[in-house]
Amino acid sequence: MKAKIVTQKALDKLKNNTQKALNRSLDRHIKLAVTGFSGSGKTAFISALVKHLTSQANKQNLPFFDVVREDRLIAAKQVPQRALDIPTFDYQGASACLLAEQPTWPASTERINTLTLALKFHTHSGLRAHLSPTSTVYLELIDYPGEWLADLPMLSQDYQTWSRNTLELLQRDKYKPYSDAFLSLLDVFNATDDVDEHVLKTLAQSYQQLLCRLKDKTKLAQLQPGRMLIPSDLAGAPVLLFFPVMPVDDTHESSQYRQLEARFEAYKQQVVMPFYKQHFCQFDRQLVLVDVLSALNDGPDTLQAQREALQHVMQVFNYGKSGLLKRLFYPKIDKVLFAANKCDHVSPSQQSDIALLLNDMLGEQRNELRFSGVAVDTMAISSVQSTQAKQVNDNGQHLECVYGKVLGENDWTTYLPPQPPNHCISAQQWPKYGFEFLSFYPQKAQQGNLGHVRLDHALQFLIGDKLV
Amino acid sequence: MKAKIVTQKALDKLKNNTQKALNRSLDRHIKLAVTGFSGSGKTAFISALVKHLTSQANKQNLPFFDVVREDRLIAAKQVPQRALDIPTFDYQGASACLLAEQPTWPASTERINTLTLALKFHTHSGLRAHLSPTSTVYLELIDYPGEWLADLPMLSQDYQTWSRNTLELLQRDKYKPYSDAFLSLLDVFNATDDVDEHVLKTLAQSYQQLLCRLKDKTKLAQLQPGRMLIPSDLAGAPVLLFFPVMPVDDTHESSQYRQLEARFEAYKQQVVMPFYKQHFCQFDRQLVLVDVLSALNDGPDTLQAQREALQHVMQVFNYGKSGLLKRLFYPKIDKVLFAANKCDHVSPSQQSDIALLLNDMLGEQRNELRFSGVAVDTMAISSVQSTQAKQVNDNGQHLECVYGKVLGENDWTTYLPPQPPNHCISAQQWPKYGFEFLSFYPQKAQQGNLGHVRLDHALQFLIGDKLV
Repeated sequence: MKAKIVTQKALDKLKNNTQKALNRSLDRHIKLAVTGFSGSGKTAFISALVKHLTSQANKQNLPFFDVVREDRLIAAKQVPQRALDIPTFDYQGASACLLAEQPTWPASTERINTLTLALKFHTHSGLRAHLSPTSTVYLELIDYPGEWLADLPMLSQDYQTWSRNTLELLQRDKYKPYSDAFLSLLDVFNATDDVDEHVLKTLAQSYQQLLCRLKDKTKLAQLQPGRMLIPSDLAGAPVLLFFPVMPVDDTHESSQYRQLEARFEAYKQQVVMPFYKQHFCQFDRQLVLVDVLSALNDGPDTLQAQREALQHVMQVFNYGKSGLLKRLFYPKIDKVLFAANKCDHVSPSQQSDIALLLNDMLGEQRNELRFSGVAVDTMAISSVQSTQAKQVNDNGQHLECVYGKVLGENDWTTYLPPQPPNHCISAQQWPKYGFEFLSFYPQKAQQGNLGHVRLDHALQFLIGDKLV
Repeated sequence: MKAKIVTQKALDKLKNNTQKALNRSLDRHIKLAVTGFSGSGKTAFISALVKHLTSQANKQNLPFFDVVREDRLIAAKQVPQRALDIPTFDYQGASACLLAEQPTWPASTERINTLTLALKFHTHSGLRAHLSPTSTVYLELIDYPGEWLADLPMLSQDYQTWSRNTLELLQRDKYKPYSDAFLSLLDVFNATDDVDEHVLKTLAQSYQQLLCRLKDKTKLAQLQPGRMLIPSDLAGAPVLLFFPVMPVDDTHESSQYRQLEARFEAYKQQVVMPFYKQHFCQFDRQLVLVDVLSALNDGPDTLQAQREALQHVMQVFNYGKSGLLKRLFYPKIDKVLFAANKCDHVSPSQQSDIALLLNDMLGEQRNELRFSGVAVDTMAISSVQSTQAKQVNDNGQHLECVYGKVLGENDWTTYLPPQPPNHCISAQQWPKYGFEFLSFYPQKAQQGNLGHVRLDHALQFLIGDKLV
């Protein structure tokens, strides 16, 4: 009989394996999806999150983030990501913009990317403390273009429904001037004709130009299909060459209508679904950033469209039994935070109004989400500070202003923001001259430190419970 | 009992369905993969094929293409493609280059694309003729970057083997000057260290620059990983951030070596495999275009490398029981044509030497392919004519010259090409001053018609048997 010799190395390995199994069972990986329509500030948010956790994690800076306030965070650092086929989030590039002598906002997300932070901390809880004095949580951040989020609601629509909704949207007052060229081409388009690739291409290109112009000139978020705005490897593929058409009764198999319908379905099945299947069902937590001030600037049609877009997205997120995402992907998200970003473009006392407005935009859907066991919160934040609050005395009246460098201008401005509504208002209730909130450059970093508004609240809600 | 009323419409439908089922069983769809390493002329070939079939299909022009010589081709036209997620081949753009007043070669393929031609013809065969006087074959052309073809042999290698082969290649005389910068970085790289993303990125970028320079300055075809040359959506993903490293003995799980190995395997599994799985196993026929003259210009190292690359590709294509592709994808390719393209850069009497040289480069592998039931042929073609043959009398001696407009120059040149070898020659057998074959612009179209050399032979071999 051979004697069994247990070496120290074998023991260490055993211990190591046990620790590994435990890591898994203790849920030490958190996947956080940072989402939001284009322009909502996702890239800046992720950069700020990494910056604050890796080099500004002190209780003066993040007082509402428990693990920091309780002095338990030991260190945070970027580690190799697990998904090798996803580009790494360019933290260096994005933070360089924010930390520059003349700070600017980092460029918009054009594709999915990711970054993993290891957070090492002293544990609270008996179980973990007993096993090991410290614990490490791997926080995987996933960032993807807002345009892709806008596609999600398409999954629950057929071509006919999507066409009707889209054409209705395009005909609203605010968007009509941009839609005219496409709509007049559509007027002379005969959907019952035999397929003519050239005609389809011409109209699809006109529709694509329309989407690009709407993105450029308005704040309309729900621009579908989103990949028309960032075609990348799909440029020129038939799956991107479709457009909305009013339903026709009598179509034959080789008609233009049927071809468009086939392309629409292929887009859902071959472009939208794989992305959500591969990534969405893996998320634990989700942040949805919303730029409500820009929507207010854009007018009642855009506020209404943003509200609808948010509700559509939430409908798909309804994790209850009948939710589409549930049926398709079995997601495990248990917390969703809706954050009105760039809140310091208004004065501190107005920031709660923005949070209330966002809350009102979510409407009943919010309760339904909660009912199905998802924790939902709404708040107003600025992941990167862009103004300072400033009291101005105007003939004895105290005016709450903000002070910052207006986007596209060189001078610093003291500015009295208009009062934002704290609930959704209709076109009839809209102020006569509309809203005009200004946009600002990021504030200059102080000794290499970025400022923020309630980033710590957001972190506590999103991952605080995993760091105990 | 309800009487069964058979309407004319129902009968038509039945007939139609029978016809459809028959179409399938009669194999009326042909998928032709047009492959070849970068610069071998794939885009020009497809454009020429479409041009000749759609508007120059007469027996004077295509005498060796049976369906045309026998006056049986009724019409060919582009029809909607079946794969909606693949960009459509830009025939308009590519043919515009070839048909211009000052013709140029179309730009290189940067991504997969496709085009479907419907070929309507009078059938020969009793069976088909009996059912219908005419028949339609759908010819699907698939074009993809040569860089992707170069990746195929990676599938049968592990990281260690690939690293050794690649480093050996980089150290050959011809490529050493370009490799030096990367190799000296590699000298101070410690593969047993813990993963340092920054170090890996720096070396991967240096390796990428090396590949780009080799592509730019030499005719080396086997540049792996091919996606480093066309990163597209994968730019910045870890799966593209690897490079060859000499094997090390003692590596731990979190070592640089293991991370590189993991990325190499991920590249094979997540990038190369899906492409071949999705597309390759569907091909019926394959054309491999080869630019042997450029390899000869580049010297013995490149001719040798091209020979190895072709043999590697053929090894993977070995459709016999033990072939890798067979095991992975169950392909059904039954005919492969290797064509030395741009053959009219030498005189007509030298063209057969090029075909013989290519045949010799394929070596034994060719027989093995045949043995496993694949018809293989080799020929020298010019899908688009770029010179005219010209006899020059030099002091009573008849010189077989070519006459054309040399690439990058403005004037027309009469040129006596060097004699190409008709078999592989070694560095020792290489002529002292090497080879210097010139490259030419396409010849100007005559009354809108393109010229070609043996395009009809190629068509007859590749699809002639399906048009009977």
